[in-house]
Amino acid sequence: MGKIHRFTGSDSAFDWEGVSETLLDDLSSAGVTRRVLVGPRDGAANFRIRYFRIEPGGHSALERHPHDHGVFILHGRAQVTMGSQEVTVGPRDVLYIPGRERHQLRAFGDEPLGFLCVVPPK
Amino acid sequence: MGKIHRFTGSDSAFDWEGVSETLLDDLSSAGVTRRVLVGPRDGAANFRIRYFRIEPGGHSALERHPHDHGVFILHGRAQVTMGSQEVTVGPRDVLYIPGRERHQLRAFGDEPLGFLCVVPPK
Repeated sequence: MGKIHRFTGSDSAFDWEGVSETLLDDLSSAGVTRRVLVGPRDGAANFRIRYFRIEPGGHSALERHPHDHGVFILHGRAQVTMGSQEVTVGPRDVLYIPGRERHQLRAFGDEPLGFLCVVPPK
Repeated sequence: MGKIHRFTGSDSAFDWEGVSETLLDDLSSAGVTRRVLVGPRDGAANFRIRYFRIEPGGHSALERHPHDHGVFILHGRAQVTMGSQEVTVGPRDVLYIPGRERHQLRAFGDEPLGFLCVVPPK
């Protein structure tokens, strides 16, 4: 059956019904939270859609792994490492990061960075 | 190599670098355009991310097919049929439409409806 996760947050704090938040901070990332908007709990076996928020000054881990990412920026600005590229992107910009490409996203400026990230199933 | 599609549009007309528009109107839909933001042209073999715009009064085809959809509303409001459910959703709301579920999206109100739609590869 189809699932709905209604937006229940505000412009400065995104949140959705039936979606929980996971703090991802560890030695290699800082200020990162993740919400799985579409995933196995919805019965989705073919892809996952996640919302990430990175606080000002924060960054994701510098990673390199087999799976690819599709990214859609929702708010704030990002400094992005993708392979040998270093780019700055903002709201509604789209990135495709292929598998095995080294990548990292950093919040750029004073605003929190928020983006959707699509990945294949685990 | 990683790909970037920068947003080049406006609040009332979304568009991106390196992304073309396809008009989908036929006997079963009305006022629908599609832009593939992430797909085979980017080297993405595991999922596709599309942006759909439906003009006021327009609607997608009433469809039922094996593949599933993840939907993130960007602007406007949608009246949605998902199986036996009829719901109205708005900006930042999230839908998951499983495979083989009958579904249709209609622009609701005076604004164009815009949403991201994630699907598995063809």
